[in-house]
Amino acid sequence: MPSFSRLIRFESPDGRTYFADLGADTVELPTTGSKVTAYPSIDDFSTGNGESVAVGKLLAPLPCDGVPIYCAGLNYRSHAEEAKLPVPICPPLWTKPATALAHPEEEIWMNKYCASSFPDYEGEVVFVTSRSCRDISVEEAESYILGYTAGNDLSCRLFQMPEQSGGQFFYAKAFDKFAPIGPTLISPELFAGGKGLELITRVNGKVLQKSEFNKDLIFSPSRILSHMSQGTTIPAGTAVMTGTPAGVGAFRSPRQFLKNGDVVEVEVTKVGVLKNKIVFQ
Amino acid sequence: MPSFSRLIRFESPDGRTYFADLGADTVELPTTGSKVTAYPSIDDFSTGNGESVAVGKLLAPLPCDGVPIYCAGLNYRSHAEEAKLPVPICPPLWTKPATALAHPEEEIWMNKYCASSFPDYEGEVVFVTSRSCRDISVEEAESYILGYTAGNDLSCRLFQMPEQSGGQFFYAKAFDKFAPIGPTLISPELFAGGKGLELITRVNGKVLQKSEFNKDLIFSPSRILSHMSQGTTIPAGTAVMTGTPAGVGAFRSPRQFLKNGDVVEVEVTKVGVLKNKIVFQ
Repeated sequence: MPSFSRLIRFESPDGRTYFADLGADTVELPTTGSKVTAYPSIDDFSTGNGESVAVGKLLAPLPCDGVPIYCAGLNYRSHAEEAKLPVPICPPLWTKPATALAHPEEEIWMNKYCASSFPDYEGEVVFVTSRSCRDISVEEAESYILGYTAGNDLSCRLFQMPEQSGGQFFYAKAFDKFAPIGPTLISPELFAGGKGLELITRVNGKVLQKSEFNKDLIFSPSRILSHMSQGTTIPAGTAVMTGTPAGVGAFRSPRQFLKNGDVVEVEVTKVGVLKNKIVFQ
Repeated sequence: MPSFSRLIRFESPDGRTYFADLGADTVELPTTGSKVTAYPSIDDFSTGNGESVAVGKLLAPLPCDGVPIYCAGLNYRSHAEEAKLPVPICPPLWTKPATALAHPEEEIWMNKYCASSFPDYEGEVVFVTSRSCRDISVEEAESYILGYTAGNDLSCRLFQMPEQSGGQFFYAKAFDKFAPIGPTLISPELFAGGKGLELITRVNGKVLQKSEFNKDLIFSPSRILSHMSQGTTIPAGTAVMTGTPAGVGAFRSPRQFLKNGDVVEVEVTKVGVLKNKIVFQ
């Protein structure tokens, strides 16, 4: 397992991808142009042979690109209550395509089709797998988790309506750039079981979701990963969005969907703030 | 667009992957060890510089591996009726992971977890995209379809129950090897809009599904692909399962789920027979 406390991935000014460890003690992100000790792959951390590289733009802190993202739904009691949906025996699961990934500070461009379909935010805690797994128990699952970060499970609510999509959530959530993730990936040690960890979502600075991870969650990351892996090979580098607490736009009174120019921030204690601007094309 | 009538992909005895065109006039598959004119990539067909290669084992006739598979649901009037589910405005969509792909004649190994969760067959017509697309119209969609083949959308019915999975179909259908596809990919010209094309599913030789594609289908392949592509980049080589007609095991009387040793055949006119044996581990 690669050794880091708070991982970032970034593109250097010359377009190469690097990883760096910010350490356990700082939540400050490096400014553009500042230099950090960086490695071309997370597997290189153990060599200690990092090089000093200027930070260009931050990327989602995943070990690689091109891996579909998993989503677990109805995983906060408060959200299941606001949605008036019963909690099932297993975590409801679906995917977002690899092309849904968006990076910290990246603008989320929505064409007219998405913009007019009631786009909404869902602040979430995300975990990322360290290696491929299949048929693992809940007890084993923790050792397959590389770390934890923040994510926004952007969703066009129109297409979650059963009369539109037959009740399948995939389509409403699969649009390009509908899965911003970051800004840092904290180690399982720093995550410490999520104890006391807060998940806060703001739109234009106003707090719309706020939840203490451990008090509201139904299925733990280990439980979700074990369930995902039954009979199914889960690739290394899979990001799993673990569900959203109460406060999404669709269930507010009055309803509040995302508008052109809105800035959505998802903050997770120790991970930092994932910030993305919505731009209607 | 690569030029072929009836495409196969296969592994040679020395483990390399090749493509060959069986031509428009034969539905006979080459026997193991027989030689065909073959190309390392479908883009090489236009060169005419094929080499004579012995066929080892047939592979799913896709241009590449590693691309998640799309599924459209509730797309045959007869199946929507047997499932007593209303037909939505848009095709319901979800995915199967790339690891769900299984090849013609490949054994589908199910562990106890899958075997005890009411595994079922769904014979389907499958189309495959030729190039990446986004925001394409129904009219444009046809020019992005490389060809048509057969597939089996294997499903563990237990996990389609709302009380198990919250009604999300993904998990029930995502298990390793739950998407056999093949044996040949026929060109859009040979498919000819699916006119008169029959889709037949047999288990141990007994016909359990039989449908005329064009008479029972709700959303056409072009309509599905256009819908998939709105706001979303669809990669080249994406296989799309287009839904199943009436006759699945879960809605038969008495119910008939898959058992150890069952041989499932999905036959599509001109495509041939996709045959897979179910093996309980």
